[in-house]
Amino acid sequence: MVRRADVFRSKQGIDLLTGHQVESIDPKQHKVAGTTLDGREFEQGYDRLLIATGASVVMPDLPGFDLPQVLPLKTLQDGRRMKSLLNSRNIKKVAIIGMGYIAMEMCETLKALDIDVAMVKPNPVFLPWLATDLADAVRDEIAANGVGIHAGHEPERIEPSGDGVRLICSDLELAVDMVLVAIGVQPESELAGSAGLELSVADSIAVDRMLHTSDENVYSAGDCADAYHVVTGEKTWIPLALRANRAGWAVADNVCGRAKALDGVAGTSVFRVFEMEVARTGLNVTEAEKYGFEPVEMTIKGASRAHTYGDSHPLHVSAVADKKSGRLLGMQIVGREGAAHRINAPAVALHMGMTAAAYTQMDLAYAPPFGPTWDPTLIAANQLVKKI
Amino acid sequence: MVRRADVFRSKQGIDLLTGHQVESIDPKQHKVAGTTLDGREFEQGYDRLLIATGASVVMPDLPGFDLPQVLPLKTLQDGRRMKSLLNSRNIKKVAIIGMGYIAMEMCETLKALDIDVAMVKPNPVFLPWLATDLADAVRDEIAANGVGIHAGHEPERIEPSGDGVRLICSDLELAVDMVLVAIGVQPESELAGSAGLELSVADSIAVDRMLHTSDENVYSAGDCADAYHVVTGEKTWIPLALRANRAGWAVADNVCGRAKALDGVAGTSVFRVFEMEVARTGLNVTEAEKYGFEPVEMTIKGASRAHTYGDSHPLHVSAVADKKSGRLLGMQIVGREGAAHRINAPAVALHMGMTAAAYTQMDLAYAPPFGPTWDPTLIAANQLVKKI
Repeated sequence: MVRRADVFRSKQGIDLLTGHQVESIDPKQHKVAGTTLDGREFEQGYDRLLIATGASVVMPDLPGFDLPQVLPLKTLQDGRRMKSLLNSRNIKKVAIIGMGYIAMEMCETLKALDIDVAMVKPNPVFLPWLATDLADAVRDEIAANGVGIHAGHEPERIEPSGDGVRLICSDLELAVDMVLVAIGVQPESELAGSAGLELSVADSIAVDRMLHTSDENVYSAGDCADAYHVVTGEKTWIPLALRANRAGWAVADNVCGRAKALDGVAGTSVFRVFEMEVARTGLNVTEAEKYGFEPVEMTIKGASRAHTYGDSHPLHVSAVADKKSGRLLGMQIVGREGAAHRINAPAVALHMGMTAAAYTQMDLAYAPPFGPTWDPTLIAANQLVKKI
Repeated sequence: MVRRADVFRSKQGIDLLTGHQVESIDPKQHKVAGTTLDGREFEQGYDRLLIATGASVVMPDLPGFDLPQVLPLKTLQDGRRMKSLLNSRNIKKVAIIGMGYIAMEMCETLKALDIDVAMVKPNPVFLPWLATDLADAVRDEIAANGVGIHAGHEPERIEPSGDGVRLICSDLELAVDMVLVAIGVQPESELAGSAGLELSVADSIAVDRMLHTSDENVYSAGDCADAYHVVTGEKTWIPLALRANRAGWAVADNVCGRAKALDGVAGTSVFRVFEMEVARTGLNVTEAEKYGFEPVEMTIKGASRAHTYGDSHPLHVSAVADKKSGRLLGMQIVGREGAAHRINAPAVALHMGMTAAAYTQMDLAYAPPFGPTWDPTLIAANQLVKKI
């Protein structure tokens, strides 16, 4: 997505100063200061300040990660660089460091370009945040598409090797033409931290429901800022598009004096890898334990269509509830169809603090092409209630 | 779906009396009476009685509707009769009376068998319960598949004509080889009504949340019984599979002395016709007015995928809320993908009496293959809140 500076200036009347690197914020004096691209120092006063610095990609500080064949994928520039590398060279084999969303989406994209792909990461557990049966289903799908999965190998360094490179990990060496580093992002909060603003989970900028930072005239929104989790009530940092976008709209209202409070995030997310949809909302067992719940988990293997209809695929659902209160804490769904949008009903339930028993009563849609009479999320909730 | 009597008897120990037609219930004497298939009269006492008579298909009392080429589709026998007709004769053209779920599903099925299909009904408005833009999208899909849509023609009689029949309607005559009558079902409540049990919406059997009828020892569940609507709080009769199934489980608990109360229905339903998914939950404007709300409607045309992703299809969403309370009253979704399961999030919201403004805060899943950053149901709710 590209937005042009002149649109901000001419159509929206915004005094947009590009090429101005802010280097410090002075909350007491209500001003920011820095240097322009041409080396001039500048200062800019404010009544209210919004910090929307986003997140930056994490690159390990290891030998060889500065080689031209080693790149992340976060900015438009990263994308152009990768495209030009793919176009100009004979890229036959790529290693991806990391097994998160970007790694998954890129392994599919690279395979579609007929490129050999190997994924590698230190943690021996593939998708550790996902229930075991669900993670296995995703792993099977990726392996079936010929992608090498090397979990449990710590990347140590990258060395040039002919036109390509060698990625050297613990007990593993991969000779490839390109390395994609996809081990996550971190909040761009250094400026805020140096100004004495309160930081929070993973060093994200702490904001309240109105997107105020710890200074009443300074706001923050987007991937640099934290959020409340609707299940735990505690702060969390989940840098995803909908929350960033929603916070953008809300902070504009608040900065302009129109109060707009945000509810919080449920930790809902989805990705597709090859033909598999992977969706989650709320907490898994590990997270639930961390926040003092007594989690009970139920994993079922349902079907994406009525058994009378045919062409059905397995739909794996894992549901977690708190033993003491019966409250639904989270759900995860994996399948070739019907996983992605199905996660939204339990997400709404989490916003409302609903019990698993109450969820079993939900009047969800049924027709044979779209699922069994009892939606698989209802079946999981029913079984979970029995287990509790 | 077929269940065999001997399974009930041998595996579940149920004294299943087939071939016993109950003709009367005596709630005071706690007994039912009737006649067996071989003409013997019988009586059967009970401590508790469950009436699970289901619904029967509506057949108009008009000339020619008893011809062998004219049939409904409700029971297994109906299905076998239709299959045998399709197999044994040269069926080239079929008229369907009605434009509901069964009519839609069957017009697709018959077209897949290379049969010409014409649909006819008295009401000139096609799918009157659906918002206009959404109904138009469904109509376009059906018309594009070569099905004749004749709304506004009252069927008057059917006459034999060679091997086929002539369906004569107001200002329309159709010469076809078979007529499918799909104008709905009615609750099988005559027995209950004759026994003095309270009847309700559309003559369905009135039951409370524990599935008691107006007699404390008589229960009813399934398509013959009514239900509470979670939006109106009033009784409704919506004979769909999930509610019937759920009531079956709950009534078994209640009859056996284990209290189980049902929440109610949101009126959630979905069907597919050709490549179009049609889903709804809650009330439309007409229904909302009927129940004393002041409905405001917002219809948007969103997209099934992120615009950067490609292969996106229009996704039409209509949302209705109450002007006074801001409460979300219903939602409808039509599109080639992503409509069916998307209806479940607003369905959960309706169960919780959520406002449209609260719905805009829901943390729904986003990834480019599955929708835009703001889920189309969120966009509709946002626009609806602005309109209110």
